[in-house]
Amino acid sequence: MPGNSFGHSFRITTWGESHGKALGVVVDGVPAGLELSEEDVQKDLDRRRPGQSEVSTPRSESDSVEILSGVIDGITTGMPVSMMVWNKNAKSSAYDYIKNIPRPGHADLAYTEKYGIRDHRGGGRSSGRETIGRVAGGAVARKLLSQKGIEVFAHVIKLGGVKAKPLSFEEIRSNVDSNVVRCADPQAAEKMLEQVNKARSEGDSIGGIVEIIATGVPAGLGEPVFGKLDADIACAMMGIGAVKGVEIGAGFECAGMKGSQMNDPIILNNGKVTPSNNNAGGITGGISTGMPVVCRIAVKPTPSISKSQKSVDMAEMKEIDVEIHGRHDPTIPPRMVPVAESMMALVLADHMIRSERIGPDSLL
Amino acid sequence: MPGNSFGHSFRITTWGESHGKALGVVVDGVPAGLELSEEDVQKDLDRRRPGQSEVSTPRSESDSVEILSGVIDGITTGMPVSMMVWNKNAKSSAYDYIKNIPRPGHADLAYTEKYGIRDHRGGGRSSGRETIGRVAGGAVARKLLSQKGIEVFAHVIKLGGVKAKPLSFEEIRSNVDSNVVRCADPQAAEKMLEQVNKARSEGDSIGGIVEIIATGVPAGLGEPVFGKLDADIACAMMGIGAVKGVEIGAGFECAGMKGSQMNDPIILNNGKVTPSNNNAGGITGGISTGMPVVCRIAVKPTPSISKSQKSVDMAEMKEIDVEIHGRHDPTIPPRMVPVAESMMALVLADHMIRSERIGPDSLL
Amino acid sequence: MPGNSFGHSFRITTWGESHGKALGVVVDGVPAGLELSEEDVQKDLDRRRPGQSEVSTPRSESDSVEILSGVIDGITTGMPVSMMVWNKNAKSSAYDYIKNIPRPGHADLAYTEKYGIRDHRGGGRSSGRETIGRVAGGAVARKLLSQKGIEVFAHVIKLGGVKAKPLSFEEIRSNVDSNVVRCADPQAAEKMLEQVNKARSEGDSIGGIVEIIATGVPAGLGEPVFGKLDADIACAMMGIGAVKGVEIGAGFECAGMKGSQMNDPIILNNGKVTPSNNNAGGITGGISTGMPVVCRIAVKPTPSISKSQKSVDMAEMKEIDVEIHGRHDPTIPPRMVPVAESMMALVLADHMIRSERIGPDSLL
Amino acid sequence: MPGNSFGHSFRITTWGESHGKALGVVVDGVPAGLELSEEDVQKDLDRRRPGQSEVSTPRSESDSVEILSGVIDGITTGMPVSMMVWNKNAKSSAYDYIKNIPRPGHADLAYTEKYGIRDHRGGGRSSGRETIGRVAGGAVARKLLSQKGIEVFAHVIKLGGVKAKPLSFEEIRSNVDSNVVRCADPQAAEKMLEQVNKARSEGDSIGGIVEIIATGVPAGLGEPVFGKLDADIACAMMGIGAVKGVEIGAGFECAGMKGSQMNDPIILNNGKVTPSNNNAGGITGGISTGMPVVCRIAVKPTPSISKSQKSVDMAEMKEIDVEIHGRHDPTIPPRMVPVAESMMALVLADHMIRSERIGPDSLL
Repeated sequence: MPGNSFGHSFRITTWGESHGKALGVVVDGVPAGLELSEEDVQKDLDRRRPGQSEVSTPRSESDSVEILSGVIDGITTGMPVSMMVWNKNAKSSAYDYIKNIPRPGHADLAYTEKYGIRDHRGGGRSSGRETIGRVAGGAVARKLLSQKGIEVFAHVIKLGGVKAKPLSFEEIRSNVDSNVVRCADPQAAEKMLEQVNKARSEGDSIGGIVEIIATGVPAGLGEPVFGKLDADIACAMMGIGAVKGVEIGAGFECAGMKGSQMNDPIILNNGKVTPSNNNAGGITGGISTGMPVVCRIAVKPTPSISKSQKSVDMAEMKEIDVEIHGRHDPTIPPRMVPVAESMMALVLADHMIRSERIGPDSLL
Repeated sequence: MPGNSFGHSFRITTWGESHGKALGVVVDGVPAGLELSEEDVQKDLDRRRPGQSEVSTPRSESDSVEILSGVIDGITTGMPVSMMVWNKNAKSSAYDYIKNIPRPGHADLAYTEKYGIRDHRGGGRSSGRETIGRVAGGAVARKLLSQKGIEVFAHVIKLGGVKAKPLSFEEIRSNVDSNVVRCADPQAAEKMLEQVNKARSEGDSIGGIVEIIATGVPAGLGEPVFGKLDADIACAMMGIGAVKGVEIGAGFECAGMKGSQMNDPIILNNGKVTPSNNNAGGITGGISTGMPVVCRIAVKPTPSISKSQKSVDMAEMKEIDVEIHGRHDPTIPPRMVPVAESMMALVLADHMIRSERIGPDSLL
Repeated sequence: MPGNSFGHSFRITTWGESHGKALGVVVDGVPAGLELSEEDVQKDLDRRRPGQSEVSTPRSESDSVEILSGVIDGITTGMPVSMMVWNKNAKSSAYDYIKNIPRPGHADLAYTEKYGIRDHRGGGRSSGRETIGRVAGGAVARKLLSQKGIEVFAHVIKLGGVKAKPLSFEEIRSNVDSNVVRCADPQAAEKMLEQVNKARSEGDSIGGIVEIIATGVPAGLGEPVFGKLDADIACAMMGIGAVKGVEIGAGFECAGMKGSQMNDPIILNNGKVTPSNNNAGGITGGISTGMPVVCRIAVKPTPSISKSQKSVDMAEMKEIDVEIHGRHDPTIPPRMVPVAESMMALVLADHMIRSERIGPDSLL
Repeated sequence: MPGNSFGHSFRITTWGESHGKALGVVVDGVPAGLELSEEDVQKDLDRRRPGQSEVSTPRSESDSVEILSGVIDGITTGMPVSMMVWNKNAKSSAYDYIKNIPRPGHADLAYTEKYGIRDHRGGGRSSGRETIGRVAGGAVARKLLSQKGIEVFAHVIKLGGVKAKPLSFEEIRSNVDSNVVRCADPQAAEKMLEQVNKARSEGDSIGGIVEIIATGVPAGLGEPVFGKLDADIACAMMGIGAVKGVEIGAGFECAGMKGSQMNDPIILNNGKVTPSNNNAGGITGGISTGMPVVCRIAVKPTPSISKSQKSVDMAEMKEIDVEIHGRHDPTIPPRMVPVAESMMALVLADHMIRSERIGPDSLL
């Protein structure tokens, strides 16, 4: 079973490696009649792009997207939208020294066991650069969702032990891109940045938590038993590299709660029956309730660190100490923000079509 | 897109409602040549069955499984295995009073919004009884996995605020079924039981955390980008009713860790290259490493509580107070244990076949 | 990859063997709000049922269907509809003599090669009895299609070398069930019946052609490249046992035609742009045109014949002569009629939902 | 449900339009360790390429393929193989006059009904140029199959009423590319060419039949009920533009045969149990028998003809006469040969992996 496609009715197929010729995505299931330009996609790719600040890798890539199909006169035709970005700043020889050395915390050993061959150049397909396809596809999903008033945004709520204080959706949306760690709480952001700099100076890295929110999601998305909306979100999020945990609404907190605390009371609000609270994170029984969908993900520290670590030279089959010198991010959560937003948008676009809130063939 | 099938190469399709005639599952993709009897399946269904102790609902169901196809002379033929359990102790009239009242914390409101009709009898398909099909299918998966030395087991590690102490796999396996809360730490189990009894006497319910472990998993399971093993596990686990969080290995803890702490060093062990620690929970880059797969899930308190809650009578469209009187569990995690084991087994059986560690056609 | 499910948005999963305990189907993706009774399904099963006339096997089965889930008060709930029929007249010992002998023209040898084990009792799952699940699922599809004015019917147009004359849709619908060979041309039907009786008396069997027609199909069903409506119909039809050819519209005739003959002119008809002829069989570029969908299938002679044939005793590995004595049909096309109708209905129901002509969640 | 992917375990996703920037394919599920070069793919694309002879369109395209991912040092890595061809000789303005006029026999009207918008430039995605992605993907499938001794080849057996005489597989393989109509019988080829020239000079077009053969296919490919090998082949073939019929083995001939003629006797051949004849076309019960797979497809005459035809100007909603002047093939079957071979190869590669005759992860 190949594993490079995601979604059912709105589906992306991504391809490309960190140091290959190019990376791209085919987006299938885009209804005809959507206005779509390269700028729409570039905007999100620019937020994902490396080399933007001290918290990300210095690799310099413009990541200029080219739309190759599926659009005529700025309007989608219902045909697959193929998009591509060329790799320009790959320095493959910098990875020669680890050709036979699996890096701790990376996919290297698992890939070698599975495939018997490994693209060692910058991590190959297991690199974070693979997310270019997700973000480009996610940009199309977001454009589609915006037609129905659905908005997706994310922010860093914990980094290197520093927690952001609770904020309103409005504050989060306004503040998230105002600092390089993408934390909407400015005081916390400053302390987080200190932690990032400290880790980098020590040749180490730090983990964190990202929260993803979707507003405007109508009630009724999700299938009853195995295509549940929360299951699909969990799949989407856990499938992003470096994510080790996913929670919805109250999440792990619920383990210490009582039913009378956890249950969201149901009320009448302007003639509409609705939960009056959102411990459920917008989903009960796997189906959206009409409340905002709220999800949090745990992101591990960047596995590439320059501190010395134990590994094995598999050509010589002997244990060695290794320091990872490639260009890498000292922390991942800030760059995870647009990626996690994209995955949420992809899941929602898929379910919007599956549940017929968006017609699969045409918006015209 | 229908949502009652799970898996690709090893796939279950479940059906049935809490108060319908019967519940069942069709298991497709079972290789020919596997010894399979009704006892193999009944054993797991008995662990899932209600009415076993003070921590579960008093509804009394024998849940006797019947294998209807796919087996001849005790051996699978490669054809779909259909299994069924009749509902015998359904008391549908007990639910008449909530026909028009969505229960807080339940799927009732979301189902009504989605389908325009709702099977109110015991929650219909959103009931925990739906898991009969999962557990029966999971039993076949477990039998298949056992041919390759893979074992799956789960235990309650937190309940009502009480935490179990860390234990060895051996202790967990030995102890888990020795008490009704399915906690392998006997002292903690006793305190957990007190919490359950306290909650029930207050007309309330409590949540907890279940840990699921799979040993003997070979390296190389999982697909590179979207069919990752951890993503499929997250999907499987979050798709169980009442689960609000999933984590793998260090999980949410990793958000506060440094790379040098989180990364598992790689060593040579008897000529085999392997991680020497398991913060990764047996999976890096979405692919199994050969270490045990370790997963934890947050289970919310049972939404059915007899304490008074706010809801809306949708026939009269007015707010009311409601007390839920049906037979229900005061806490879910102990009964979640066999269900979560089943979902883990289903994911692993699917990937064992997808990665050709088990031949899809025949074991013969 | 398991192979017992068909369809995407409207999907059936069938199970059961000729001499197993029971046969059944799970229908997933049925929108809520459809009136559905056991009579709706029984009606089609009765047309499929054996023992009805001299042209079918004498095996006597009532094939009474039981709906086990997904319906409450005669209305579908959006949950999977599970249906079952018990086997009652299986005489398995009658097949003991061929336990090790693959029957020519049957799947026996291929199954043995694939699975290493074979259910020899009446052909196991490769028996025509497997179509019970298809017909029961097809009955639900037909009920759904009838809500949108789509009707599916089939008739035998060639049998044992005898051809029916061309008839109007009205004549076909009226006449098809008026004779046991299900040919709408009464004169031809009589001659066909003679051929059937002649073949049976010689211990032989005959093949034929069945035509399937769907009226009321709206324009726009089908996907552009790989989910084409005609491709899905071809898949559905070729996947019925004994079918060796499928054609749409002019079919194989088109190989001898010129473009100017084959192309259907496009005209204005009451303000609607439409083809004025139907060589296309209702489909161009894989997408329905709004004209009736017309398909024909070639059905091979029943492989079970009592005439002596060459085969191999695989226990002793020596060539032998074998006469097949089980109960079997002397010709298949008359009994193929309801099965082929069902497969057409299943494909159309799937595409009606995929293209959003029928809402996937609810008709309410 | 999007419709631009084909296959389960070996899957292609194609994209691109006749007059868009480029066309391409992502091939997912290619095991690691396969030698693969651009020459391997170019060879097949060159056989598909237009402008090669008097029987094909004069549009001149080099169709030079570029492999963008999934290969390192000439060896596949298990990652998706993305391939692309730039459009260079598109003359879109030549199609302006039919912007609002659906061409008879083409997908134009159906696309307009489905999407509300239509890429009129050379037929957009419904053009034969779309098959570039299929042929490029098919080339990878063929390379993979060749590792297991499976060979796929096709030839034109009927064109413009002229039939080729029966030939041995050896003769077909040797002769097929020796003439521009790709008929392995030289005398027939000459007469076919006369028919093509006659049709072109009349502003008309002709249809024909292509036969596709696969040798070396092991017994046991195909799933029992809905993933049958013949059903998947029928789906693959009917899904190629202009195909209106598909038959396997004896095909439509079987409708006039008796069981005693149709059934292939089973014999012992050098210790192997095998059919001694191949009316089945290599498949019984949907599963391969080990005999060559033989399939024939009916290809309609090119719908683009310069003879005057009736259509409707949909901007003005009035009936008109239209002559199609774009560059087009006077007959399709010769160019269909590499496309049909590719589709057969894709189906077989998929089933070889699904049935584990080729490991899904790695050949190493």
